[in-house]
Amino acid sequence: MGSNGDVGPVDTQEAIMQATYRALCTHGYSNLTMQSIADEFDKTKGVIHYHYDTKEELLVAFLEYLLDAFERNIAIDEQHDPVTRLDALIDTLLFGPPERAEFDHWELTTAMLEIRSEAPHNEEFRRQLSHNYETIETMVTAIIEEGIDQGFFRDINVEAVTTLLLTTINGARIYQVTLQRDDVAEIAKSSLMLIIRDWLYRSDVIDD
Amino acid sequence: MGSNGDVGPVDTQEAIMQATYRALCTHGYSNLTMQSIADEFDKTKGVIHYHYDTKEELLVAFLEYLLDAFERNIAIDEQHDPVTRLDALIDTLLFGPPERAEFDHWELTTAMLEIRSEAPHNEEFRRQLSHNYETIETMVTAIIEEGIDQGFFRDINVEAVTTLLLTTINGARIYQVTLQRDDVAEIAKSSLMLIIRDWLYRSDVIDD
Repeated sequence: MGSNGDVGPVDTQEAIMQATYRALCTHGYSNLTMQSIADEFDKTKGVIHYHYDTKEELLVAFLEYLLDAFERNIAIDEQHDPVTRLDALIDTLLFGPPERAEFDHWELTTAMLEIRSEAPHNEEFRRQLSHNYETIETMVTAIIEEGIDQGFFRDINVEAVTTLLLTTINGARIYQVTLQRDDVAEIAKSSLMLIIRDWLYRSDVIDD
Repeated sequence: MGSNGDVGPVDTQEAIMQATYRALCTHGYSNLTMQSIADEFDKTKGVIHYHYDTKEELLVAFLEYLLDAFERNIAIDEQHDPVTRLDALIDTLLFGPPERAEFDHWELTTAMLEIRSEAPHNEEFRRQLSHNYETIETMVTAIIEEGIDQGFFRDINVEAVTTLLLTTINGARIYQVTLQRDDVAEIAKSSLMLIIRDWLYRSDVIDD
């Protein structure tokens, strides 16, 4: 984890989260039990129950953990221009971080899809998923606003562009696993870069 | 249904499909049984089993039925220009057809999300979902190509624009029900129209 490379979990909380991920990938959401999570690490079910009362509570913590992992891994170099930074952010969201060994992107997207399909019936899941959405939304908005301020981007509706990016990425990831079509995600990536370079990027407009 | 307005099902097959929809909305995918579907109409479980061997087979037929319903309802006036037709198609995909009483758009999106979350583990679901995707992809591609041929649109990468539209719509619908945010779908709609009018549409480029 983190700077340790492939070294194991640093504490119990971390171990529970990694066990949750493995159990979720192996059994799927509907067959996930506290026992199946306990089976994935070297402690008893009691240890999990000490930290989390219910499976729901544990999964909300897992969604929070995924957001933290995303924020840790995104590390976008502030020195790069906004186009390069958007490019890196879109890549990480669509295909997973380039050097992250902790999750398999495909398995994670599949597991996340199952949690999401529960969200319409589960307020706690919706609350945490909304928080995750808003955190990434804030990140994308900041890059686009900076791009406008620095004269890279045209003075366009920031909310519209941010929503376009996030909905496209979300839709592409879901097609990726539900249709098993990586090409849809690849084309979505090209489309977004085309939009950014050909429409949003100021110099292209001026060059025309 | 169809031209009958709110009159009931025209045959058993149709009745089973409507019962499947109601049972899916009421019980969710994981609690869906042949019995719960039979409970939703006036025939016995035997009638369903006569037509469909398994729940999976029934759900594949249901996905096919949804595509047919979509194709029946989309009826885009060929006389309109491509921008108007794309607008209508995006609206129908994002918010449901304007005058269709047969499905509640929100409930249907939620039910579809559950079927989709099974797709990574189920080849038959993937096959039918892929067929649905490709049918709508063909529809969008045809409108954009016609728009280019008739000089409305710039000569842009058709595959890229089609994929952008479909992934954005898919992503927006999923945020709609998983975050319970209709505004994300509304903004996604505005973003797509902005892209179409401001970037794809030829006269805007010329006007610049």
